[in-house]
Amino acid sequence: MKIDILSLFPEMFKGPLEASIVGKAIESKIIDVDITNYRDFTNNKQRHVDDYPYGGGAGMLLQAQPIFDALDYVETKNGGLGNVILLDPAGRQFNQKVAQELSTKEHLTFICGHYEGYDERIRERVTDEISLGDYILTGGELGAMVIIDATARLLQGTLGNEESASGDSFSSGLLEYPQYTRPASYRGMDVPDVLISGNHQKIDQWREYESLKRTYLRRPDLLVGLELTEQQKQILQDIKNKFEK
Amino acid sequence: MKIDILSLFPEMFKGPLEASIVGKAIESKIIDVDITNYRDFTNNKQRHVDDYPYGGGAGMLLQAQPIFDALDYVETKNGGLGNVILLDPAGRQFNQKVAQELSTKEHLTFICGHYEGYDERIRERVTDEISLGDYILTGGELGAMVIIDATARLLQGTLGNEESASGDSFSSGLLEYPQYTRPASYRGMDVPDVLISGNHQKIDQWREYESLKRTYLRRPDLLVGLELTEQQKQILQDIKNKFEK
Repeated sequence: MKIDILSLFPEMFKGPLEASIVGKAIESKIIDVDITNYRDFTNNKQRHVDDYPYGGGAGMLLQAQPIFDALDYVETKNGGLGNVILLDPAGRQFNQKVAQELSTKEHLTFICGHYEGYDERIRERVTDEISLGDYILTGGELGAMVIIDATARLLQGTLGNEESASGDSFSSGLLEYPQYTRPASYRGMDVPDVLISGNHQKIDQWREYESLKRTYLRRPDLLVGLELTEQQKQILQDIKNKFEK
Repeated sequence: MKIDILSLFPEMFKGPLEASIVGKAIESKIIDVDITNYRDFTNNKQRHVDDYPYGGGAGMLLQAQPIFDALDYVETKNGGLGNVILLDPAGRQFNQKVAQELSTKEHLTFICGHYEGYDERIRERVTDEISLGDYILTGGELGAMVIIDATARLLQGTLGNEESASGDSFSSGLLEYPQYTRPASYRGMDVPDVLISGNHQKIDQWREYESLKRTYLRRPDLLVGLELTEQQKQILQDIKNKFEK
């Protein structure tokens, strides 16, 4: 997958793109990331990329010109831009489904803003506006990193174990059940007996129950519209009877 | 604000904590960040921090011991841990209100996981479980960076302009209105006349209308439970009549 990033702070990507699993995906050529500093495309001597908002107000806005010219450059270099993604609080909410959708694309181009906002005309070049969540960051860089991380780990070969992305929270629509590893007893806290019983049917039942219970208690909104099996529906009813809020 | 981070990949923080506005907040001593690699606290020769899950299943789990011992170390060093935050998809959803809440704390300690999940007993030491959104990342590091960025920018002195955090999307509960900066005409796209009219009453009205319109069309869920003025209610009714879906 080809990934282009337009950013004023290319050095911000240094750690996240070098270390950890995304770094390995780059090394293995599963993804190929290029960062373009759009400050290099300003057409003023001071190399400003921002200016005051029309109509007044606090803060500075990113101008359209450096972004448009940087996009032209990337487009010419790569023969296209792929999905042009603007990180924006007004965009569609990023979630696991969006990560799966993006993981099927061949080319993603991220525009990372800074300052108080963008000149509205930048949206004309954008094909996809995405929001990480209902919070404000100082720029789009961390948003791009998060989306790249969540997307890259779904690409074949990124995670060591082929199975390991499929058992995650959200992939089934439910939160994950509690998990335990050695030692069986630690600082007075013991692993539930069932998990060391060796009875795999009972372990599966326990995990399904705990997964439904955690989702019901913490994120009941995830259950809305979810297709449950008859057995899951019955378990959920038992949980509701027991933990009725 | 004192911030401690427990991570297996301290080098991931290199760019994000050095560049941009968080870097400046560190330089100005508004925040003080320490990263502790909990691999240094393993008590096995191979320096493993993960092990197989009890009851079977794919992937490896983070063990409780290195995290507990690293927390003990940080606690002794700092005379406390403050809020101990676990980045976890089952946690409460991070949003601007949570960022505001965290910005009033004196000390935050982040636990960044990796591998397939945590030993459940780690939650015993945690005071706050937070999720960035309904997606899965390869580790908690980007989550910690996002929370630190969103929180640090709310601290006095981080942003240059005292006003600049108050006009954001979400601070009013609404999405931000479209903004424009120079030039007035760019690649055939013009700034709306009202913004260059000099009539500040009309500009305010236009912005309020556009802010309500964008929120209604893109994120109607944000309007639920929001306290609107009588005037805003009337504008919203006009918008609904015009754009009824």
